[in-house]
Amino acid sequence: MPLWSGRFEGGLDQSAWEVNASLPVDQRMALQDVRGSLAWAKALVKAGALTQSEGDQIQRGLKEIAAEFEAHEFEFKAGDEDIHTAVERALTELIGPVGGKLHTGRSRNDQVATDFRLWLMDNIPALVAKMERLQGALLGRAEADFGLLMPGYTHLQRAQPVLLAHWWLAHFWPLQRDRERMIQVAARCGVLPLGAAGLAGTPLAVDRRALADELGFAHVSPNSIDAVSDRDFASGFLYTAALTGVHLSRLAEMMGLFTSQEFGFFELDDAYATGSSLMPQKKNPDIFELARGRAGTLIGLLTGLLTTLKGLPSAYDKDLQEDKEGVFRAFDLLSGLLPVLAGALDTLRVNPAALAAAIEPGLMATDLADYLVARGVPFRQAHGETARLVRRALAQGKPVSELPLEAFQEVNPLFEADLYTAFDPQRSVERRRAEGGTAPEAVRVQIEQARAALQGSS
Amino acid sequence: MPLWSGRFEGGLDQSAWEVNASLPVDQRMALQDVRGSLAWAKALVKAGALTQSEGDQIQRGLKEIAAEFEAHEFEFKAGDEDIHTAVERALTELIGPVGGKLHTGRSRNDQVATDFRLWLMDNIPALVAKMERLQGALLGRAEADFGLLMPGYTHLQRAQPVLLAHWWLAHFWPLQRDRERMIQVAARCGVLPLGAAGLAGTPLAVDRRALADELGFAHVSPNSIDAVSDRDFASGFLYTAALTGVHLSRLAEMMGLFTSQEFGFFELDDAYATGSSLMPQKKNPDIFELARGRAGTLIGLLTGLLTTLKGLPSAYDKDLQEDKEGVFRAFDLLSGLLPVLAGALDTLRVNPAALAAAIEPGLMATDLADYLVARGVPFRQAHGETARLVRRALAQGKPVSELPLEAFQEVNPLFEADLYTAFDPQRSVERRRAEGGTAPEAVRVQIEQARAALQGSS
Amino acid sequence: MPLWSGRFEGGLDQSAWEVNASLPVDQRMALQDVRGSLAWAKALVKAGALTQSEGDQIQRGLKEIAAEFEAHEFEFKAGDEDIHTAVERALTELIGPVGGKLHTGRSRNDQVATDFRLWLMDNIPALVAKMERLQGALLGRAEADFGLLMPGYTHLQRAQPVLLAHWWLAHFWPLQRDRERMIQVAARCGVLPLGAAGLAGTPLAVDRRALADELGFAHVSPNSIDAVSDRDFASGFLYTAALTGVHLSRLAEMMGLFTSQEFGFFELDDAYATGSSLMPQKKNPDIFELARGRAGTLIGLLTGLLTTLKGLPSAYDKDLQEDKEGVFRAFDLLSGLLPVLAGALDTLRVNPAALAAAIEPGLMATDLADYLVARGVPFRQAHGETARLVRRALAQGKPVSELPLEAFQEVNPLFEADLYTAFDPQRSVERRRAEGGTAPEAVRVQIEQARAALQGSS
Amino acid sequence: MPLWSGRFEGGLDQSAWEVNASLPVDQRMALQDVRGSLAWAKALVKAGALTQSEGDQIQRGLKEIAAEFEAHEFEFKAGDEDIHTAVERALTELIGPVGGKLHTGRSRNDQVATDFRLWLMDNIPALVAKMERLQGALLGRAEADFGLLMPGYTHLQRAQPVLLAHWWLAHFWPLQRDRERMIQVAARCGVLPLGAAGLAGTPLAVDRRALADELGFAHVSPNSIDAVSDRDFASGFLYTAALTGVHLSRLAEMMGLFTSQEFGFFELDDAYATGSSLMPQKKNPDIFELARGRAGTLIGLLTGLLTTLKGLPSAYDKDLQEDKEGVFRAFDLLSGLLPVLAGALDTLRVNPAALAAAIEPGLMATDLADYLVARGVPFRQAHGETARLVRRALAQGKPVSELPLEAFQEVNPLFEADLYTAFDPQRSVERRRAEGGTAPEAVRVQIEQARAALQGSS
Repeated sequence: MPLWSGRFEGGLDQSAWEVNASLPVDQRMALQDVRGSLAWAKALVKAGALTQSEGDQIQRGLKEIAAEFEAHEFEFKAGDEDIHTAVERALTELIGPVGGKLHTGRSRNDQVATDFRLWLMDNIPALVAKMERLQGALLGRAEADFGLLMPGYTHLQRAQPVLLAHWWLAHFWPLQRDRERMIQVAARCGVLPLGAAGLAGTPLAVDRRALADELGFAHVSPNSIDAVSDRDFASGFLYTAALTGVHLSRLAEMMGLFTSQEFGFFELDDAYATGSSLMPQKKNPDIFELARGRAGTLIGLLTGLLTTLKGLPSAYDKDLQEDKEGVFRAFDLLSGLLPVLAGALDTLRVNPAALAAAIEPGLMATDLADYLVARGVPFRQAHGETARLVRRALAQGKPVSELPLEAFQEVNPLFEADLYTAFDPQRSVERRRAEGGTAPEAVRVQIEQARAALQGSS
Repeated sequence: MPLWSGRFEGGLDQSAWEVNASLPVDQRMALQDVRGSLAWAKALVKAGALTQSEGDQIQRGLKEIAAEFEAHEFEFKAGDEDIHTAVERALTELIGPVGGKLHTGRSRNDQVATDFRLWLMDNIPALVAKMERLQGALLGRAEADFGLLMPGYTHLQRAQPVLLAHWWLAHFWPLQRDRERMIQVAARCGVLPLGAAGLAGTPLAVDRRALADELGFAHVSPNSIDAVSDRDFASGFLYTAALTGVHLSRLAEMMGLFTSQEFGFFELDDAYATGSSLMPQKKNPDIFELARGRAGTLIGLLTGLLTTLKGLPSAYDKDLQEDKEGVFRAFDLLSGLLPVLAGALDTLRVNPAALAAAIEPGLMATDLADYLVARGVPFRQAHGETARLVRRALAQGKPVSELPLEAFQEVNPLFEADLYTAFDPQRSVERRRAEGGTAPEAVRVQIEQARAALQGSS
Repeated sequence: MPLWSGRFEGGLDQSAWEVNASLPVDQRMALQDVRGSLAWAKALVKAGALTQSEGDQIQRGLKEIAAEFEAHEFEFKAGDEDIHTAVERALTELIGPVGGKLHTGRSRNDQVATDFRLWLMDNIPALVAKMERLQGALLGRAEADFGLLMPGYTHLQRAQPVLLAHWWLAHFWPLQRDRERMIQVAARCGVLPLGAAGLAGTPLAVDRRALADELGFAHVSPNSIDAVSDRDFASGFLYTAALTGVHLSRLAEMMGLFTSQEFGFFELDDAYATGSSLMPQKKNPDIFELARGRAGTLIGLLTGLLTTLKGLPSAYDKDLQEDKEGVFRAFDLLSGLLPVLAGALDTLRVNPAALAAAIEPGLMATDLADYLVARGVPFRQAHGETARLVRRALAQGKPVSELPLEAFQEVNPLFEADLYTAFDPQRSVERRRAEGGTAPEAVRVQIEQARAALQGSS
Repeated sequence: MPLWSGRFEGGLDQSAWEVNASLPVDQRMALQDVRGSLAWAKALVKAGALTQSEGDQIQRGLKEIAAEFEAHEFEFKAGDEDIHTAVERALTELIGPVGGKLHTGRSRNDQVATDFRLWLMDNIPALVAKMERLQGALLGRAEADFGLLMPGYTHLQRAQPVLLAHWWLAHFWPLQRDRERMIQVAARCGVLPLGAAGLAGTPLAVDRRALADELGFAHVSPNSIDAVSDRDFASGFLYTAALTGVHLSRLAEMMGLFTSQEFGFFELDDAYATGSSLMPQKKNPDIFELARGRAGTLIGLLTGLLTTLKGLPSAYDKDLQEDKEGVFRAFDLLSGLLPVLAGALDTLRVNPAALAAAIEPGLMATDLADYLVARGVPFRQAHGETARLVRRALAQGKPVSELPLEAFQEVNPLFEADLYTAFDPQRSVERRRAEGGTAPEAVRVQIEQARAALQGSS
């Protein structure tokens, strides 16, 4: 029986009940719901709305219920519209009518907002740890693969040689930003709605600051109407999850490419690859494809919540009930993916020969232009002259590094025999020593920064 | 054990398994999977790839499996990666190694596309029937409430009187378009992928046209690579679902308004309204708010799939596995909502007094301008003069209809005593007789059109 | 001065004016607006609301205005709130107060819906022709490149050999579906809103069927409230544009891959490639990347409109003004991209040697399994045995085709010396003869189907 | 002529040029581009890559170009592919080939990321000020309307009386969060990409920390590949803009309701309302509807960018060029709307009589239940009993406050004559004194908090 049945003639239509009930989704917040109720009961005693003995009974009952949830022994009943109803119903079964005093001065509107924020505050740390775990795997790769060169790409065309370690770290930093954002989301959850009641504020002399302390909230909501209506924290979570998804999708795209036969840079361990029901030779990077595909799902979940919120009247509307399913889904998606991707990176085999073979002389064309620049040629002219050399080499079907000295000098007489040193990829990366560059010495500094970023977090 | 384990050293990492396995989602297509396999087995016999006796064994085994699914007695096992694997595994357990012949010449790539299309073809009709059911409720209201006038709104400001029946039908036609689109989506599903195998086509002499007939597909996919990759039908479903959601959200928005105390036009039956855990007097239109809120979810599901598809390489990529969850979710959302909304409309009480009271004389201002137009005044001038009268009445705090004749004549001498007939709302609606207009005679025609549209569909 | 100023005390605040005015966007529908007005004037005469002579004056004036628009000589003025106001204002300047009679019995609400639908009906054919142009380029490639084999990919891993022609056509068919959908969108636009007036229908005896014929609409809107409110056609356009964008993005992704140095299958003509301001050797497939990136924009435009529509009250709300900008943007994006992509495909150079080199023996592993199947081995067992051979070859660092006969026979004694024919890629594709398969004879049929599909459209 | 033409045979196809060129969009960053180049030229001199005299020439030329941009006198030429090309081209025209030295050691990849971040850092403060302006208007209303009561709503049903000031502030706090987020977005922009060059880092001995100081960046990007690829800041801007849009849409929804005839709580000043071209009496809240509608557009822009980013390969891809148009559009939308909404609120007229009339006794039902609670009745029982009284009153067609004492006592004998004080709305709000509640004393505290929040920001 719903908590509000007194006002109504008959029961709710059965199909309407099913559309309306949120228990299948919100039961996930059972422990948070009980915790919020424990704190509320305590506040009610302090406010004089419950006697100490009533408060004790309720505390005892709620703790028993919590224990049942933890042991997965709590029994839901047919009339449990949502987790709040289930808990109040069970409480009253356990301790009698005094259970009906728990809801004094509050509403499911402030209660559900409190539960939901608590759930995120409780669960985000584990997600953050998984993000950190993947960052650790990327950093681990950077350290393990230090020294190896690879072609860097722009527009998926070979551009310039870079350190493989540098490339791994290019996927570390976006996750660092994601992690910082996620920690901030948790902080933004820390504004207590409880005490806002339906929308107007509780009429009881409840000390909301004490309540906040009790429950681990850093702040108290300043406006009761906003308190029951605000879902910025949920959309902040989904935004951060979606952007994390985007970053994983970019890493995943590259893993798909680099494990392809054409690139052949990496090979997945069998524990992280899958096969084909038809084609016996296939070894597929399914988990990375799923990471890429699920970025779409995550973006859709964000879109869905923002769209649901758009245009809603002030205070609480039932539309807000749609907020949790997407958040839980996003949480589960990322929680599942992050450690698997980390495991796949840990166990990956790198193929140094393939990396080396892919660094053809054309990747040092910029270094060749820089050769002229160093001899006083304006870069734009040097770029044009080098481009002409590249074209000539292409026409002759050979690498630009195999053109004879005369060919170079024809284009610009400043070229001398030492020009060929420009084609040394090791020299090329070593030149890029400025902060953030791909030179080994710069990357070593970067690895320290990355390590500090990880340690700063723990 | 996955179907592809032969190529691999050890098993898949356990967390990777969980991220990768699709059984929790795709088991919903169990019956379609078996049906596809039955047809495939038959085709294999015809193609000479199975003996008649092998075909018979497989048929028998598959039918037993189908029976188990129907009786909800099928037992999944830990190694069942997806529904296809589960069925092949069970088949082999039932009939021995000959079960391993079923997968000859096909792949899970064409199989899953076939299952998914079949699922939609099987299930869309029930959804269409529910859309029809809601249309029927709207038409029923139009018939029941025929004759009642109400204020029509634009910009949520009272604009002109309309028939309530006309307003109900304004929500009928969008659903008619949705229903037509949904039927078309089902038709677009009717292109058989089976026989495309992994991507290159089956090497067996399978008659794909016969296979299509067997399974109820109108067409055969013309290109095997496209066949395993095409998810247009799924995004078409989600688009149609999202647009239906938008239409429901607009109806829901109005139901929220019209059941508010301020409008007071409608009252929900208690079987379709809910209350507050805190405020004893509340009677809330939750189901309409859920309909509005879930439009956001539906739009998010569409966005999610399109985003997942964006930028994928040709043929099959594992990202495509993300296609089903959203489709099933959208299907369930709409399937749940539609009959509940219909029930709520069926049982709604209309408040004729509130409707009538809301038709103040200002709503006939256009008719007043038309009065001048009929006397040769250019509409733009008549509009301006009427607006001036409206302003004057506002300043005097009275309805424009209560200005004295002289006030009208001061603005334009063509006004005569019969001008006051312009303020008759009944006359106002009766004037709008052109096709699609709100005059009772036009609405009667419209009701016939609506009835025909519904009947045409059954 | 806005058309509605009579009711108001002072003018609109200047910043509010700028936020409100839609002229910068809707002036693009100038010719449609005039055409709609010409038809309306004619209808007014027939309905007796204008004299013939008034009708003639208005016709003359409107034609002059149309000529000015066509010559790009029309002068907008500061007070022109939107295109409708600009035209009525100019008309009244040209022909005097009788111009103020044009707006009799209609509203901007039905007018803008009519203009917008007309604009799409006018412009979609050119877009469809561009889609057809790209399909033609794909078909052209299939014909030109007929006979060449390439590796087909799933999960971006080499899977089985396919005809390059077959692969090109895999990108033809999605566009065929898009084109069919787009033609359908245009058809769905063909429902006339004019005559719905503000929301209640026109009070004039206008023959809306005749009006529809005059303007090229196949149908008349059945409900005036729905008529001013319905934007399904616009969202249908955006959905189709977004899905087309998704298909282009998938082609684009592959073009990026296949023009990379690692794949090296294609080379863009210099007329369709761009370079780097820094790296002289770069040749970038920018236009394909833009096609891929803009799929995101197109999906966002669809999301934007659906979200704008969600939860709106019935009839016309100003929110609907946001409908056009996205549609025009999507139209321009696709109109720009399609011919460029076609040009790039027309002029592309294919590298047959690279294609051939990429077809390693492992791609015929399925054919090897089929060899056993043909000798009675259940496919599942054959798959497992072949997989074991693949693994053994990998361990020895050689192609599976170079294992000695004994190695095969060790795994399954049914292997005989003729097994090596399974490794012939030509034979592999030729085996896939079923409809839609990659065998040359099947692809020839497919080319005919594609040609018919293109011709059917012109 | 593009900067990269040397490598290519002929020019780019004209339509390809148009699809590719970004000048129409990125010219908006002209001043940022020049500023970045000024700093780069200075850094080149310090790094020894330019002589002091070359540096001076370039500085002089760039300043002249900046002056031309500021005076809107800069002339773009046909070959200007983007703003960077235009500036380098103009510079070389002004100062000769030494202009070609400016691009030494950098790339458009790091340049555009720098320009874009700078543009946001330059422009966000003005947007933040506009957000603050609207917050100020809300706070101003709260102060001006202090003391007035109104019905608070949940589910758009009258729930409990609240202070109008409290309701205004419920729309203040979401904007406070938005503003904080937006300031944070600007801070997140402050990571310098310049010096990352194409992707590998500049080979010059450039002091990137000094460069960052020069340009006002707080940090230096730690990884050059990430630096050219990271668009988190742009998506952060769009997310914050979208969420702000959502908050505006909710305010707008309420303004539409409260200015409707049915609610009649507010009246817009004529300077912020618009009329109908057809219906002379209409006064429409168009600007609020546009605010609501554009929330859809803003959500679409966010979706668009995230989708564009999804699945991109590492480092720079041309897809990233799609990042700016949406950001500029979102910026302009909000910049236009915010001050107009503020102006509309400043000039709004409140109708105290309508507010008061809407507070019917039913809104105090919770207070009535609390009456019983104060007498020891468990809340759940009190809720049920009050609900029964509400139902009885409804059945009798009168307010619950008009039931006789006996009726109350029949339900619960604890009721006494003083129960009727529960129906005093003033008393009802005054009881809600806890922090964040609607009691005048709590709202006064809240007003102080709001004032502090605003002042803290300036």
